[in-house]
Amino acid sequence: MQFTALQIATLLKGQIQGDPEAKVSHVAKIEEAGDGSLSFVANPKYEEFLYTSKASVIIINDSLELTGPVNPTLIKVKDAYSSFAFLLEKYNEIISRSGKNGIEQPSFVSKTASIGKDVYVGAFAYIGENVMIGDRVQIYPGCYIGDNVVINEDSKVFPGAKIYNGCSLGSRVIIHAGSIIGADGFGFAPQKDGSYKKVPQIGNVIIEDDVEIGANTTIDRATMGATTIRKGVKLDNLIQIAHNVEIGENTVIAAQTGVSGSTKLGKNCVVGGQVGIVGHIQLADGTKVNAQSGLSKSTTAPNTALNGSPAFDYKSSLKSQAIFRNLPELQQRLLKLEETVQILTDMLKEKNGIEEK
Amino acid sequence: MQFTALQIATLLKGQIQGDPEAKVSHVAKIEEAGDGSLSFVANPKYEEFLYTSKASVIIINDSLELTGPVNPTLIKVKDAYSSFAFLLEKYNEIISRSGKNGIEQPSFVSKTASIGKDVYVGAFAYIGENVMIGDRVQIYPGCYIGDNVVINEDSKVFPGAKIYNGCSLGSRVIIHAGSIIGADGFGFAPQKDGSYKKVPQIGNVIIEDDVEIGANTTIDRATMGATTIRKGVKLDNLIQIAHNVEIGENTVIAAQTGVSGSTKLGKNCVVGGQVGIVGHIQLADGTKVNAQSGLSKSTTAPNTALNGSPAFDYKSSLKSQAIFRNLPELQQRLLKLEETVQILTDMLKEKNGIEEK
Amino acid sequence: MQFTALQIATLLKGQIQGDPEAKVSHVAKIEEAGDGSLSFVANPKYEEFLYTSKASVIIINDSLELTGPVNPTLIKVKDAYSSFAFLLEKYNEIISRSGKNGIEQPSFVSKTASIGKDVYVGAFAYIGENVMIGDRVQIYPGCYIGDNVVINEDSKVFPGAKIYNGCSLGSRVIIHAGSIIGADGFGFAPQKDGSYKKVPQIGNVIIEDDVEIGANTTIDRATMGATTIRKGVKLDNLIQIAHNVEIGENTVIAAQTGVSGSTKLGKNCVVGGQVGIVGHIQLADGTKVNAQSGLSKSTTAPNTALNGSPAFDYKSSLKSQAIFRNLPELQQRLLKLEETVQILTDMLKEKNGIEEK
Repeated sequence: MQFTALQIATLLKGQIQGDPEAKVSHVAKIEEAGDGSLSFVANPKYEEFLYTSKASVIIINDSLELTGPVNPTLIKVKDAYSSFAFLLEKYNEIISRSGKNGIEQPSFVSKTASIGKDVYVGAFAYIGENVMIGDRVQIYPGCYIGDNVVINEDSKVFPGAKIYNGCSLGSRVIIHAGSIIGADGFGFAPQKDGSYKKVPQIGNVIIEDDVEIGANTTIDRATMGATTIRKGVKLDNLIQIAHNVEIGENTVIAAQTGVSGSTKLGKNCVVGGQVGIVGHIQLADGTKVNAQSGLSKSTTAPNTALNGSPAFDYKSSLKSQAIFRNLPELQQRLLKLEETVQILTDMLKEKNGIEEK
Repeated sequence: MQFTALQIATLLKGQIQGDPEAKVSHVAKIEEAGDGSLSFVANPKYEEFLYTSKASVIIINDSLELTGPVNPTLIKVKDAYSSFAFLLEKYNEIISRSGKNGIEQPSFVSKTASIGKDVYVGAFAYIGENVMIGDRVQIYPGCYIGDNVVINEDSKVFPGAKIYNGCSLGSRVIIHAGSIIGADGFGFAPQKDGSYKKVPQIGNVIIEDDVEIGANTTIDRATMGATTIRKGVKLDNLIQIAHNVEIGENTVIAAQTGVSGSTKLGKNCVVGGQVGIVGHIQLADGTKVNAQSGLSKSTTAPNTALNGSPAFDYKSSLKSQAIFRNLPELQQRLLKLEETVQILTDMLKEKNGIEEK
Repeated sequence: MQFTALQIATLLKGQIQGDPEAKVSHVAKIEEAGDGSLSFVANPKYEEFLYTSKASVIIINDSLELTGPVNPTLIKVKDAYSSFAFLLEKYNEIISRSGKNGIEQPSFVSKTASIGKDVYVGAFAYIGENVMIGDRVQIYPGCYIGDNVVINEDSKVFPGAKIYNGCSLGSRVIIHAGSIIGADGFGFAPQKDGSYKKVPQIGNVIIEDDVEIGANTTIDRATMGATTIRKGVKLDNLIQIAHNVEIGENTVIAAQTGVSGSTKLGKNCVVGGQVGIVGHIQLADGTKVNAQSGLSKSTTAPNTALNGSPAFDYKSSLKSQAIFRNLPELQQRLLKLEETVQILTDMLKEKNGIEEK
């Protein structure tokens, strides 16, 4: 798709300086933009790129005073960053919705399923018994929506995501490709002969509004009750959420982190990548966990920052890590001290006749 | 589905105290149970919840002596825990099998495939050439069963799991959604120009009876021979098992752990989450590995417990970790000691004319 | 499939010693080979197995001088290892291509898609609008190829891999089952009320020639521009590559490693399993990273070896790790020294009247 500077300026209610017919076909960062690029400058530290940029069109703040000649066509707006973000959203909407409407064939939709208005169901998607799909939901090709699942309006389930029976998704939820919602929790009772017997996992997973879940992430159903992902939570790719976990509102978790069974994270927590959290603990609101940490204890004070495996207070942990690097030197100092003290001891023994300890 | 206290008591051969017509529609933990809940009390420490519970029906041990009035209908049995587990299993069977029978359309079943009795093949499942599917096997929608795969009776392959050609599954095996069995092992021969040449991976994966494998776990095929998952093994989600690995009978591994090529784990090992195990080592029977550990050496004594990255003896490792937290204090003590010894040295030098070392 | 020693010898231009009609149906390592096995001996340390092997046919170097009687039929060639590898490749080609040709039904191929010659599209595969598929490409069952994706000749996309709209694959690329290419990067702008707003991710993923990507790995699309996987890169299973990352030519990464946003790895790097690399750093060509390390800083010197979390110089890190194991002993030595110094101090105080410090 191509757009002219004039079309963009009209959309943004901005003023054009340069050729209104300049055409753009893609967006780029100002430092990487070439012919056909639309870019923007909002941060003064990128202003220098304006004068050498090969972009075709650049959006700038109307408060910016140019200090030299500029080749690309400029569009002046009140807030260049917001205007650019607005364009990205519009563009993204066009891209992601284009042609994605209606029920593609072949797909499998149970007769007992209830499908809302303006829904997209891709080819090879499977919609089980008694499923309820809200208005404008998009189910991409190859998804599996198990029996009795509820998906509320404006949610998107990307290709090949699988939602086991009985789970529910709120409104505006995004599930990326390959994620598995509601597989059995990992529960086995050890038997006398060393084998294990499966503990039935008959709960479900409840995902509230405005949650986004990355690709190939797994969220297990509860043994009983629900594994719960609260409103506004953002989970990255390849994350493991075990049975009966609860993730509090607006908590954000980076890729490859694992949360063990029955643990509860508070609101607005920020958890780095590859973190491990043991089962049956609670993290207070606003807990911050550094990447690769291992948490084995609850936090009770809000906004605690943690680091390390096992994790403890963030700042103390950094100090210990710094000394860890210098352990060889520390050991050397200890050895030298032992020698010196031995010399002192020998001297005093000799001179003063100390008894051997 | 709704059940009455009478129906449940009949099934469990228990005695009713209260309203035999009390109705339940779901199960819940005693501390979370509300109207319509079926719950149980087996552990004396939960007995207190009996007297305030809003559950509709509660299963208790007939040996329990009540110390106050109870609102919910009670069902008295010999062993409340076993009875409840028995109900969960029955319930789970009903839920998971309801309507899951026969070959849904559209699906792809090769003419050369052999399909047992009472098999479920979901829509969009793919069954390749010469595949053998045993009786009562369930292949959920969107699964891929490659050429020459064998799946023995009563196994379940959940939606979207992929089994590459030539692999075999025992009886009563459960593979959860999105797991990949038999992709190529990671084998590449370095070339002189810095590039890598693929080493063909022509072995397979053999999964024995009663194994359960979680969601999005990957088990690579052997270079030659077989990657082998022995009887009764339980693997959690997002686990990586590399080529030619062998996991011994009844070994249990938690989520996000990785086992590198040709390593062999013994029987009855218990491995925590996010553990990494290097290639070409052996772990003795009953080895226990704490979460996030990194193993680079074999264990020969059975039942060894390990911790840390790199891992060593569990108890010693905990001691080192405790001191790690106090490294700043330890460093401080060392510094103070150096100062004191310097003072002593200076004094003795002065008084006794020690030569500089 | 069965082959005779004669057929194999003819293919390899080797000389037969023994029965030319000896039949093999599979390959095996010399130490595990049984009846019907084809095996090889190239390394002198495996020569001993020749004299006891139950293999049916063994390939050996023609320079090898036998020191005893051998039961299996031998095929003598100039380079036994290369000949065996050549056979494996041939065998693998036969296995993996057999019958995999044409467009299986049902599948979904957009009218606007362009499909090359001798292409395989498996059942339940989805090919979106304007997709370009090169000659001899294999798209296995259940794959999703989004709108405007380009896949160049001789590439293979294994069952259930998902490629989001606008991404491109070079020639001879292999994508294993369940991998997700081009899901949205993890970008959210924090809002004043504690919630997050999605930052549109409108870039793509570019995968160059000869790349192999393991099972269930995720590679996110760029916010703007491209996440780039250069020529010859090999990625193992369950790896996370975040938005705008660049992986340099011939770099190899083991399973479960994660690379955060905008980080650039140089050429010929070797990264172990379960490594975490923070965002916005650069690793120089040839950087080597040990398993489970955590990198938070760029490397500028080529071929640097790193270890630990946080990672630093490999050899220094091993020293610190060794001392870590002995921290209890080190602490004990410090304690003993403190006691000795206290005794010395007391003695000197008493004898010489030192002032308390």
